[in-house]
Amino acid sequence: MPGEFDLIRRFFHYPTSHTDLGVGDDAALLRARPGMQLVVSTDMLVAGTHFLPDTDPFLLGWKAAAVNISDMAAMAAEPRWITLALALPHADEEWVSALARGFRECCEGYCVDWIGGDTTRGPLNLCPTVFGEVPFESAVRRDGARHGDDLWISGWPGMAALGLAQLQGQLQLVGGWAESCLDRLHRPLPRVALGIGLRGIASAMLDVSDGLLGDLSHILERSQVGAIIEETALPLEPLLAACKITERATAALLGGGDDYELLFCVPREKRGQVEALSRHFELPLHRIGRILDKSGLWLQRGDGVCEALAARGFDHFVAAKTPD
Amino acid sequence: MPGEFDLIRRFFHYPTSHTDLGVGDDAALLRARPGMQLVVSTDMLVAGTHFLPDTDPFLLGWKAAAVNISDMAAMAAEPRWITLALALPHADEEWVSALARGFRECCEGYCVDWIGGDTTRGPLNLCPTVFGEVPFESAVRRDGARHGDDLWISGWPGMAALGLAQLQGQLQLVGGWAESCLDRLHRPLPRVALGIGLRGIASAMLDVSDGLLGDLSHILERSQVGAIIEETALPLEPLLAACKITERATAALLGGGDDYELLFCVPREKRGQVEALSRHFELPLHRIGRILDKSGLWLQRGDGVCEALAARGFDHFVAAKTPD
Repeated sequence: MPGEFDLIRRFFHYPTSHTDLGVGDDAALLRARPGMQLVVSTDMLVAGTHFLPDTDPFLLGWKAAAVNISDMAAMAAEPRWITLALALPHADEEWVSALARGFRECCEGYCVDWIGGDTTRGPLNLCPTVFGEVPFESAVRRDGARHGDDLWISGWPGMAALGLAQLQGQLQLVGGWAESCLDRLHRPLPRVALGIGLRGIASAMLDVSDGLLGDLSHILERSQVGAIIEETALPLEPLLAACKITERATAALLGGGDDYELLFCVPREKRGQVEALSRHFELPLHRIGRILDKSGLWLQRGDGVCEALAARGFDHFVAAKTPD
Repeated sequence: MPGEFDLIRRFFHYPTSHTDLGVGDDAALLRARPGMQLVVSTDMLVAGTHFLPDTDPFLLGWKAAAVNISDMAAMAAEPRWITLALALPHADEEWVSALARGFRECCEGYCVDWIGGDTTRGPLNLCPTVFGEVPFESAVRRDGARHGDDLWISGWPGMAALGLAQLQGQLQLVGGWAESCLDRLHRPLPRVALGIGLRGIASAMLDVSDGLLGDLSHILERSQVGAIIEETALPLEPLLAACKITERATAALLGGGDDYELLFCVPREKRGQVEALSRHFELPLHRIGRILDKSGLWLQRGDGVCEALAARGFDHFVAAKTPD
């Protein structure tokens, strides 16, 4: 391993606040608090597959941390520790320093200790692994959705997809919306506080990374249920304001990933608790449908007609994914 | 993500024995046993940097697991869980199935639950993250070496380096030795039981992955000490038998990585305990030198003369590394 890589490793030495031993040994040492389960997730981000090779390194670092921290939010867990393994085609100190700053800034914002990693030569590839804590039996999994549960989505999903479309020259967004949409694409804000707030309320949950419909299908499959989405309940306002095309806005909302909003199911009788969380966090939470006992995914149109989404085809909505 | 990758993910679903929730959700759930610290390490293996692109996938899977498990051995920890994030240039089912079998077989051999990961498209890259447990305050770190400690190495380091040299056509090893050396290169056996046995005995430890001298320098740096190695104590026998060249054998022993033997320091008064472990595990443990209070690394030659290894140059020994 060349000395330049050793130098670069120094960008990855930061103080930790709740770790017994951080960077510098064969492994890091940490302790979960009593009564806590550990929650573990790993994601790999590859240049050309998950991000454009010329992405700003600070934003790339931020996003690499954020998408992993979002997996903790999706389990109703508190993110606590993270590692970053990194392959670089060459040792560009300035680039790596910016990447490390972005990664660290996101971690700090969520009180996550960066405890170690690996730096090596190779085609650009980032692989964070994140560890969280959740009180025993409190994690919200994908397999708990039940017939009659309401289906909720946080925030304004679809904006990141519009931002990507703008970036790829497919769209020209209106005025200030371009900036907001690009910001959602580049600096997603994992819904950690909301996820924790939904402990004991949500029956099933995940974070939307591949698109609302595609990710919903994971909940339906794991919970062995179906769902109906109400077209009139979809939070289209900002998307319509940004792109002015209903079809495009709907596709971005149902098919776009990269917003890292939380999609969750809640028994009807807990509706008030969700509304209270929305007020508490000053975060819009939209009730967009409900869970059915028969399998399948349906769209209830504004005119009351129900349409099977499988028949219409998911692909219709898989509009604006990151390059693949 | 194409459907073929979804298919491939199925190779990564295995039963677990001590995990609350494995593959299939946003994250895995696990619990450390009471009184245990968690030990975390991640490594990235890149085609062309860490292994030859045409490496047998079963052996590659084995090695990816083994080198990570070895980091647990190096901390005197018990490896318990592992994730594998994986980028593949294309979805070759047969290749991935063999890789998964190798990875799994190694994990099973060390009672490690494979709890999740990620599969994506990209230049071939494997990134396992391993989690172990160690009783609180029992981990053996790199920073505990003290003046007067003996310096020990397990097994027969250097064989993997000779195997690689044979593979690269630089050497023609004698008879059956070629097979043994290639086996050490392809299927390293992390010294987990020895690592655990050394709790309370070793003052500092690491696993040799980059070469004995290079890795020893990490212990010396972290512990702020020096060391002297006795040339006549080096376990050269099998290396000499295999390659018949003293210079080459010494270079392989001091500079070759990939054997994943344990290098550890032990106070002189515990020498008998190390010898007892050697008998118990039927594993040769070689006392090759001792720790000094002044910094630097020295070689005591057979004629009694001490030579500064820094002056002679480490590079002299960095003979047979994996392609970089």
